[in-house]
Amino acid sequence: MTQTLALGIDIGGTNTIYGLVNRRGEILTRGRLPTTGHATIHDYIAALKEQLHPILSETGYGNVQGIGVGAPNGNFYTGEIAFAPNLPWKGVIPLARLISDALLLPCTLTNDANAAATGEMIYGAAKGMNDFILVTLGTGVGSGFVANGKLIYGHDGFAGELGHVIAVRDGRPCGCGRNGCLEAYCSATGIVTTAREWLQQRTDNTLLRNTAPEDITARLIHQAALNGDAFALQLFEYTGKILGQTLADMVAITTPQAIIFFGGLAQASDILLPYIQQHMEANLLSIYKNKISILPSALPDADAAVLGASALVW
Amino acid sequence: MTQTLALGIDIGGTNTIYGLVNRRGEILTRGRLPTTGHATIHDYIAALKEQLHPILSETGYGNVQGIGVGAPNGNFYTGEIAFAPNLPWKGVIPLARLISDALLLPCTLTNDANAAATGEMIYGAAKGMNDFILVTLGTGVGSGFVANGKLIYGHDGFAGELGHVIAVRDGRPCGCGRNGCLEAYCSATGIVTTAREWLQQRTDNTLLRNTAPEDITARLIHQAALNGDAFALQLFEYTGKILGQTLADMVAITTPQAIIFFGGLAQASDILLPYIQQHMEANLLSIYKNKISILPSALPDADAAVLGASALVW
Repeated sequence: MTQTLALGIDIGGTNTIYGLVNRRGEILTRGRLPTTGHATIHDYIAALKEQLHPILSETGYGNVQGIGVGAPNGNFYTGEIAFAPNLPWKGVIPLARLISDALLLPCTLTNDANAAATGEMIYGAAKGMNDFILVTLGTGVGSGFVANGKLIYGHDGFAGELGHVIAVRDGRPCGCGRNGCLEAYCSATGIVTTAREWLQQRTDNTLLRNTAPEDITARLIHQAALNGDAFALQLFEYTGKILGQTLADMVAITTPQAIIFFGGLAQASDILLPYIQQHMEANLLSIYKNKISILPSALPDADAAVLGASALVW
Repeated sequence: MTQTLALGIDIGGTNTIYGLVNRRGEILTRGRLPTTGHATIHDYIAALKEQLHPILSETGYGNVQGIGVGAPNGNFYTGEIAFAPNLPWKGVIPLARLISDALLLPCTLTNDANAAATGEMIYGAAKGMNDFILVTLGTGVGSGFVANGKLIYGHDGFAGELGHVIAVRDGRPCGCGRNGCLEAYCSATGIVTTAREWLQQRTDNTLLRNTAPEDITARLIHQAALNGDAFALQLFEYTGKILGQTLADMVAITTPQAIIFFGGLAQASDILLPYIQQHMEANLLSIYKNKISILPSALPDADAAVLGASALVW
């Protein structure tokens, strides 16, 4: 094997996905492990090494140029993750160094959503775009803002936290310790919270009443909506309305050509995206109306983050 | 005269300021005319020509390389101003072409706040910064967002409209036809609107009751606050709170090193900026706390916009 490879790792709140990627953006080997369930960061790193060391040995370490990692609150400048509300590890973790030490390869870290944005820009729905926003709708809400063809990292590397823009002033509590964050409403966990609130407050019939409230998931709400359940559809409309309102404000700042949606909840894009578009348009300043595309990720199987992370290596 | 000059023009909602600027950023000749009071855009252009033609003739047209203009809703890509709520002219105006035709020099247009941001970046408080936000607090609220050392124009040239981010959902009407925009609360007109509302709703004593409500100005509120008037100070705190809350959200997007304030209302910076900082900090996600500077413009006499506009020429 003479080709040069990069290892891309996408660390989500629930799962870690990885892939060995060639320079054409083809994922040759892929796999996953749970992000949660490890007592400490060192146990997680040990589990990661246990899976990846055999793959790297078989491929030949000499064929792998390096490792790119996307993780929530990952900092491109410092290689650390810091106070990530959706990861099990608290405080500041020197993740790039820990992974590099464990796997004996150079490692570069960025925000998971910035990695996904890079993947979409090089290989996906944002190919050729200089100005776009990538929104990840998973356990949390993340984002990568691209302006003038470059990711906005900000002066300290922590820019692009759309999930922690206040969508509802004095709204429901967020994992970050504040109230009303977009993430508290429009993530997979956010729509489930709304479902449980409504099931308590309201009396209308819905398929979701067949499941104990604590067992309701975003996937279940999506299935109910696909079956025409009015309550589930209203949950998606409410979620899309809050997202659309907040995105209308973001358009006033960076005026993207497109907003691209990625992640677990975005798999319900057929239902969710039209609501987002409708409520974004209804809230846009007139000069922005009918100019901003709302698109699902163009990369299969949520490959964008792995591809984007791997692209950090080149 | 052998030096090469640029003519910078800053068109505000109330006044138009201009200056002949050399390459070192020195304003050699300056002047102003009212933006309002002209029946049509053509009358305004005629008034502009009447003032500027003698200056350009005396300087020698050959010594002036071109004209840079900053105006609300000015579009760098098209040279047009479009649907500017704070200018007297409605619809789409090909301003760069009209000025170029009148003064027989090439003309480049940008948003007034983007022009000010360019001025601060080259000559002022943002010298050496790659990531900052310039906020203009005048008749309206404008902004220039700089990331990776470049102004964010967005895909269509209209990015950076902080004044039209929704600060209060379903809040008071804005000149743009929507409700709750930051501009409706935190511009010079916004603080006057709040004053009039409070004077009607409340009974506390204040120096502002010595003036008829329709004659109250932002300058008068500033003077009262400087005299220790509690009501006027509360008006500034309320305005600073809404600005601080909204800017905390903006920090989560572009994470600037500094936010720089410019314009008429920013002349009250000794009173207003501490309130903005206090409420921004109280609303920031923890990773951003105590990292973002709140600064007044470092350029005298509101020169930033004229200098920035002139810098478009080089």
